[in-house]
Amino acid sequence: MPRYKLKIEYDGTNFVGWQQQDNGPSVQTAIQTAAFRFCGSEVECLAAGRTDSGVHALGQVAHLDLPRIYPADTVRDALNAHLRPAPVAVLQAEQVDDRFHARFSATKRAYQYVIVNRRSPLTIERGRAWLVSRPLDATAMSAAGDHLIGRHDFTSFRASECQAASPVKTLSLLQSVRTGERINITAEARSFLHRQVRIIVGTLVMVGEGKIAPDQVVTILGARNRESAGPCAPPDGLYLVAISYD
Amino acid sequence: MPRYKLKIEYDGTNFVGWQQQDNGPSVQTAIQTAAFRFCGSEVECLAAGRTDSGVHALGQVAHLDLPRIYPADTVRDALNAHLRPAPVAVLQAEQVDDRFHARFSATKRAYQYVIVNRRSPLTIERGRAWLVSRPLDATAMSAAGDHLIGRHDFTSFRASECQAASPVKTLSLLQSVRTGERINITAEARSFLHRQVRIIVGTLVMVGEGKIAPDQVVTILGARNRESAGPCAPPDGLYLVAISYD
Repeated sequence: MPRYKLKIEYDGTNFVGWQQQDNGPSVQTAIQTAAFRFCGSEVECLAAGRTDSGVHALGQVAHLDLPRIYPADTVRDALNAHLRPAPVAVLQAEQVDDRFHARFSATKRAYQYVIVNRRSPLTIERGRAWLVSRPLDATAMSAAGDHLIGRHDFTSFRASECQAASPVKTLSLLQSVRTGERINITAEARSFLHRQVRIIVGTLVMVGEGKIAPDQVVTILGARNRESAGPCAPPDGLYLVAISYD
Repeated sequence: MPRYKLKIEYDGTNFVGWQQQDNGPSVQTAIQTAAFRFCGSEVECLAAGRTDSGVHALGQVAHLDLPRIYPADTVRDALNAHLRPAPVAVLQAEQVDDRFHARFSATKRAYQYVIVNRRSPLTIERGRAWLVSRPLDATAMSAAGDHLIGRHDFTSFRASECQAASPVKTLSLLQSVRTGERINITAEARSFLHRQVRIIVGTLVMVGEGKIAPDQVVTILGARNRESAGPCAPPDGLYLVAISYD
């Protein structure tokens, strides 16, 4: 069966997340249903990043096997037609070798977290950013983040329900950049633990508010205890931006 | 009565527009209701730009007279508290001289129009941009726009229901810039005719699609006839960005 690689964008607000679940609509089910309507076969669509409820994607990558060969643009357009009105769009479809696996072949995942740092409530970006009303020192947040780059045991920054075999991950990039009232935090790694980015962001915001010093994240990292880190930031501001493959 | 100048942001999607109307909720009514809840007086809130239904604002400016003096930040925070959950936010409040008039004192209005130029449907930006699926030549759009800059009779680019005394306006800036799949069109003038920006955008998109040549907008302008210009672009992509005062 021919395998297709899909690049997918979605507004995660009203989904229970990527993964099919019993408690509400998932992005995976939306795509699998669209694929069934298109080709008449039940297909499984597997993604590089199993985003949580409320988390958005600009460049999620997934693969699925279709019962016959179609032109790639036909796959994209047909899935998009059957996805309506769900806020999920296939940006690109591409036929790939059946050794390609969206999740296991991925060599890098890039996330962006958007904070709006102001007193006034969100309007146009409601559900699309985290509103933090206390003034944040982005320079301190950036300095704190530098301590997390590299290969570490990230137990302190891992959700209790995380199922990864090892808490050791290599964070290749972590940047906090302020532009006016916006702070964009970019994080890249081969793979992440469950909620790792959001717990890192929640901790960096504590640094930005002056509640903890930038180098205190070294102690938090060394504690290997979820209780020592900051809260998990809300899903609204998190975007899965891109997945890299060799 | 002390006068306050407000800088306001809103998601125009579910409003009938800025102006109070009988057929649905308006931004003006939302703010006037919040002001009544705050200070117990019925106040009129007048804005620089009477945006249409579905049009957004990042920097609308309005003024209102309150029955007594409050610290400016109290006005901002109290209005925001009473505006919830409407997607309207007061970004700044400032006490001003009572000769200040948000509409009549304005010396420049700046709009931005966001086009997403791709095949796939919108997800995160649904209602916040115009999706144009045919490829657009932004360079041709920019060249066409150059012909509209300056003082002209804009009758061809004016809604039939426009109530302005004169169709002559001076467009000080009109730029179309592509960044990836996005085309941002920026337009600035002391004042605009009703739907002028959206009819200009609709016409520039016809140029971008190759349906008309860039210099044909000179003929359209000279025709002084609404029928000669392109369609009115949807409100979703339009943002009132800033108002200038001397």
